[in-house]
Parts: sequence; C-alpha cells; structure tokens
Amino acid sequence: MKVLFFNCSLKGGEETSNTEALYHKVAEIMREKKPDLEFENVRVADYRIPLGIMDKVDDSDAWPVLLNKIQEADIFLIGTPIWQGIRGTLAHIVGERLYGSGATNDKGQMIGYNKVAGVIVTGNEDGGKHAGRDIQFELNQAGFTIPPSALTYWVGDAGPGPSFIEAEGWSNEFTRSTSREMAYNLVHLANIFSHQPIPAEGNVSE
Amino acid sequence: MKVLFFNCSLKGGEETSNTEALYHKVAEIMREKKPDLEFENVRVADYRIPLGIMDKVDDSDAWPVLLNKIQEADIFLIGTPIWQGIRGTLAHIVGERLYGSGATNDKGQMIGYNKVAGVIVTGNEDGGKHAGRDIQFELNQAGFTIPPSALTYWVGDAGPGPSFIEAEGWSNEFTRSTSREMAYNLVHLANIFSHQPIPAEGNVSE
Amino acid sequence: MKVLFFNCSLKGGEETSNTEALYHKVAEIMREKKPDLEFENVRVADYRIPLGIMDKVDDSDAWPVLLNKIQEADIFLIGTPIWQGIRGTLAHIVGERLYGSGATNDKGQMIGYNKVAGVIVTGNEDGGKHAGRDIQFELNQAGFTIPPSALTYWVGDAGPGPSFIEAEGWSNEFTRSTSREMAYNLVHLANIFSHQPIPAEGNVSE
Amino acid sequence: MKVLFFNCSLKGGEETSNTEALYHKVAEIMREKKPDLEFENVRVADYRIPLGIMDKVDDSDAWPVLLNKIQEADIFLIGTPIWQGIRGTLAHIVGERLYGSGATNDKGQMIGYNKVAGVIVTGNEDGGKHAGRDIQFELNQAGFTIPPSALTYWVGDAGPGPSFIEAEGWSNEFTRSTSREMAYNLVHLANIFSHQPIPAEGNVSE
Repeated sequence: MKVLFFNCSLKGGEETSNTEALYHKVAEIMREKKPDLEFENVRVADYRIPLGIMDKVDDSDAWPVLLNKIQEADIFLIGTPIWQGIRGTLAHIVGERLYGSGATNDKGQMIGYNKVAGVIVTGNEDGGKHAGRDIQFELNQAGFTIPPSALTYWVGDAGPGPSFIEAEGWSNEFTRSTSREMAYNLVHLANIFSHQPIPAEGNVSE
Repeated sequence: MKVLFFNCSLKGGEETSNTEALYHKVAEIMREKKPDLEFENVRVADYRIPLGIMDKVDDSDAWPVLLNKIQEADIFLIGTPIWQGIRGTLAHIVGERLYGSGATNDKGQMIGYNKVAGVIVTGNEDGGKHAGRDIQFELNQAGFTIPPSALTYWVGDAGPGPSFIEAEGWSNEFTRSTSREMAYNLVHLANIFSHQPIPAEGNVSE
Repeated sequence: MKVLFFNCSLKGGEETSNTEALYHKVAEIMREKKPDLEFENVRVADYRIPLGIMDKVDDSDAWPVLLNKIQEADIFLIGTPIWQGIRGTLAHIVGERLYGSGATNDKGQMIGYNKVAGVIVTGNEDGGKHAGRDIQFELNQAGFTIPPSALTYWVGDAGPGPSFIEAEGWSNEFTRSTSREMAYNLVHLANIFSHQPIPAEGNVSE
Repeated sequence: MKVLFFNCSLKGGEETSNTEALYHKVAEIMREKKPDLEFENVRVADYRIPLGIMDKVDDSDAWPVLLNKIQEADIFLIGTPIWQGIRGTLAHIVGERLYGSGATNDKGQMIGYNKVAGVIVTGNEDGGKHAGRDIQFELNQAGFTIPPSALTYWVGDAGPGPSFIEAEGWSNEFTRSTSREMAYNLVHLANIFSHQPIPAEGNVSE
C-alpha cells in the first residue's frame, strides 16, 4: 500500500520545509499503525508544471509524471504553506491540472476512486482551514474519498512570527491530535478499500 | 439503512422547494439502486433552532431532535439554496450547531463516523460549488466520510431567472449525471461501512 | 459623522465579548483622529432577526430597526467571532438580510453608497481572513466602499486556547497596526465622501 | 488617468479570450464616461512569472515589469476564467506575487493606495462570485480601494456549455448592468482620489 505526499511548498527540495516537517510526523504515525506502507515524498517545486487545462501542455511538462504517481498511490496527501490566508499557488496548480486532466482509472472511474486523501498545512498564522477546505473539495471532485477529519494544520498567532519548526509546533496538542486522527483514518479507509472497492456502477461515463 | 435529508431552504414545509425537487431525483436513484432504504425528509425551517455553541440553548431548542435524527442516519444529505453566491444561513446554522454539539457515537468517535454525506444545491445562478465546499468541509470535520463527487447542483445563467423546477433543471445533463454519481457513491460507501466500519482506534479522545 | 458597529457575537449584550474589546481599540483610534465622531454599538444577538429574503419577515422582525441604523451611518463596522474557520452565523444572517432587503438611499443607489465599511474578527485561532473576506464581499455587493486594508483581527495558535481579552491580544503588534490602519482609512474615506460623494450616475436602477 | 487590465486567462495573447471580450465592454463604458482615459491591456500568460514570495525571483522574472504597470495605474482590473468554481491559477499567482512584493508608493503607503480596483470573470458556469471575492480581498489587502459593486461576471447554466462570446453573454441584462455599475464607480472613485487622495497618516509603516 502506497502513501504519496505532494509538498506544495514554493521552495525546492534543497530547502527545509515546515510543511514537510509536519508530514513526517503524520507519516510516522501511519508507519507505526501499518509498518509495511511505502512512502513517496514529492517536492512539487522541483518539477516543471506549466499552467493549462489539458493532459500535457508541452514536451517538457512534468505533470504526466506526477499524475502517474497519483495513479499508483492508495493514500494521497497534499501539503501547502499559507499565503494571505489561503493555500499557496502550487497547491492550486496541482488542483487545476488534476481537474484539467480528467484522468480515469482502468474501470473508467475518475482517478481518485478507491484512494483516500488528506491535507497538511502549516503557516505563521491564519488560514489552515481555508487551505484545507479548498484542497479537500478539489480532491473530492477528482474522485478521492475524504475520510473523517482529513486535515491537520499548525498556525501561530495573528501576524508574522516563527514557523512550525522554529515554534516547535509539534508540541501543540491540537495539531498532534488532528494529525493522529487523520493518519489513522487514512490507513483505516485505505485498508477498507483494499478489500471492498467502490463498484464501477453509476460512477463511470456512459 | 437510513437516508436523512436536511432541506435548509428558508421556506417552511408548506411551500414548494426547488432544492427538495432535486433531492427527490437523487432519492429516486438511490431507491432504484437499493429498494430497502428508508428515507426521512426534514424541512429545517419548520424547527426552532436558536444560535449557540452548545448542545441545547434553551428548553424549546429543537436541535437535540435534529441531532438525534443525524445519529440514526447512515446517509446524510444537506440541501441548500444559494444567496449571494454561497449557501443560505440555515445550512450554516446546521453546521455551527453540529460543531457546537461536539456529539460522539457510542464508541467515542465523532457523530459522523461510519456515516456518509453529500450536498444538494439549487439556485438561480452562481454558487453551487461554493455552497457545496463549505458544507462538505463542516461535515468532514464532524466525522462524516465524503464519498467521491459528493455534490450535485443546478444553477442557471448569471443574474435573476427561473429556479430549478420552473427552468426544468432536471433536463440538464450535468446535473443528472452528478446526481446519479453521488447517489450511487453514497449507497456504495454506506454498504461498505455496514460491513466494515472504521475502527475506533486513533480517532477517539483519550 | 456616525460610526455604527454591529457586534455579531452569539452572546447577548450582558456578556463580555472579545470582539467588542477589539472594536473599542479601533474606536479609540478613530476618536483620537476625529473627536467629533458619534459611535453606536449594537449587539445584534439582542435583536430578533428571523431568516428570510425580504424587507420584513413578520411584525416582530427587528431587521428594519437595524437597517435604519445602517442607513444613518457613515462608517459601518461588522464584528464576528470565528467558528470552524469562518464567521459566526449571526454575521452571515446580517449579510443575507442586507441582500434580501435590496435597500437603496434617497438617490436610488444601493444602501451602502457613500458609506465605508470594515471588519473586526477575533477567535481562538484560524479564520480571521476567511471571515473578513466573506463579510467585505457582501458589504461591497450592498454598495459599501471598502477602504484599503479594511480588516483587523486577532487569532491565537492552532486549536483551543485563550481568547482576545484573556490572551492580551492587543499586545500583538500585527493586530495593533492593522487596527490603526483600518481606523485611519475608514475616517479618511468617510471625510472624502462627505465632501465628494459618488455621483448617482450609472449606479441607479433605470 | 490610466486603466490597467490584467487578463489572467491561461491562454496567450494570440488566442481569443472570453474574459477579454467582457473587459472590452466595461472599457467601452468607461471611455464613454471619460473619453481621455488611457487603457493598457496585459495578457499575463505572455509574461514569465515564476512562483515566489519575493520582489524578484530570478533575472528573467517579469513580475517587476508588471508591478511597474500597476504602480502607474489609477484603475486596476483583474480578469479571470473559472475552473472548478474558483478563479484560475494565474489570477492567484498575481495575488501571491503582489503580496510577496510588499510594494509601496512614494509616500510609504502600500502600492494600491489611491488606486481603485475591480474584477471581471467569465466561465461556462458557477463561480463568478467566488472568483471575485478572492481577488477583491487580495487587492484590498494590497491597499486598493474597492468601490461599490466592483465585480462583473457572466456564467452559463450548470455544467459544460458555450462560453461568453459564443453564448452572446453580453445580452444578459444582469451582466450588462453590473458592468455598467462597476465601470461608472471605478471612474467616479478614481476622479475623487485624483482630487482628494487618502492622506499618508496612520497607513504608513513607522
């Protein structure tokens, strides 16, 4: 069973990401629960993803590579920073390309069917739920099932301030408990779908 | 297996509701798929629901009655009109009271666990996805699982105009196909949960 | 020149409101800037405002009283708590009734013309910008001019925690500076409109 | 007096844009009202704008060129298509770069001060108000004044369908009247600011 994390930080993989630090905590809980999980961690900023409402915008478009990773995953996590109270643009671009692809699985259901998804957000302040809401909606529209409480985030007080790592955000009881709940529920539902997938009935194009 | 529909139209049950007309189409598809479903249709405007972040605001508060209906349901649908591009206030009140209740099931999971939820929206125009997004998020935060594509809506052209019934909105191919997909997925996932509920592990307060 | 504050706390006027505490700071700055301002502070929860898309829902509907206060104001502030990352329902109800009224001024422009508006939000955590965004939009649709940076808020770290008063939120530099900027800009623009109103041309129904 | 339009269509300038067609209608009304206006129409997709929260991401970053155009404008319009019920990513990128720049005018006020802004949206369906709300908020946070009813849009019925040009969206009475109202109000307020700018008091960093 595969877990795929798209880190939509604007920073490339050579830089430390606060959102990734929270992801590692979530991944650790999932691994304790189910030790045979495979994990893939993608820094989206390291890929060239042009804008467009199509499968492939041009020859060097990396979106098909990313889409293929999504196709292989059982559990899909999107992580994002917050700017001006909402998700960063890279998370939006992933949602727009996902929608533009209109990709389906081998039964003709949308790509997200029988996959579960959750969201991880960190920011100096204000916007965790707004970012989570927008990402969850787009994932659901692409066919992903959203298990209970599929969002964890950390934010600090209003205004500029230290980020998750510096602020030792993992000591926040709320962030720990929402991370734990999401991690367990993602694994629980992925297990369920591995035995009982959603039948291809009523949900395939005719 | 029980289907519960909260119609958050501002109109009382003695008036015709466009959103309810779309609900009946969705219910019909569910009934064809699974004839032994039980349906309950609640016009929320007929109940007295004061504002507040608590279980019970006062002695004539009808929220506990509605909460009890939610507790009994396997499939929960919220319907709403659109005003100014977003859901109506009554759907917001339901979300706020649900959050304020902090209700749990007998295993200590939040009330929505092992229940699936979807959203039905109609409006003259513009706002179906915004309304759906906000309602889905709150339901998910209350523990409901959101199956793939758990939103159907009908809207007309920009500006004032005929509503769903008058405009014969059911002839809209997109509304028909999203209704069918949501109806099937709600039943598929409710069936799955009836055999394989989400274990009470990692998702109960310690 | 009149300043009107609608405090959309769910609590009645006999209880202490964190959002009101932040309003008093904003009002103080406005008073220093322009000592002859008149202030009116309305606890909306003390009024009976039924839901509906009409001028007057029934004989004991207090909305016409509130609408009349808005008509008299030059500067209009809406304050709200945060629940689940968004404004409280009472602020939504004010927006819905304002929209449903379709009220105009004596030149036939919508009620908000030549009035300026801003938003004040407090919450334990997360959602100040989301609440502000939704309220600003509805005020703008009702004809209010939104001066630069017309939002101030205070929120704490992710999860439950102390509210504005207990947390001594006014010591937050960001909240102080956004409050100051909003207060000055509301007064600046109200002054400008008092000398140069927006002409009734292109913005009245024909 | 200068009007600047950023068309955030994902399509380059060689392709026909529906949103631009609606912009031309708005521009025409502004020109009738005030014949000496200068207009600049920028197809943002023709510029290379990398993601980042900084003034200049790299040497070929075109954002400084665009920012300079904004600095020169009196009236700023952002246009966007709708994807999945919200603005396109390019409009989001403009907002994120604007925020990341933290640009100020020569008095030390944020870049948008004494400039007015509005939003133009077209889509097959559903999302005009959501797109407008998000863009207005970011413009306001950057110091722009939002005049009354500063949004015009056209959308069709739920689901896929013809776009603005093909559907002859300009025959929609609502779209025409909101376009007219926005066009007049932008010119009215820009005129007012040209005589009575917002004083640099309370709104500059200390």
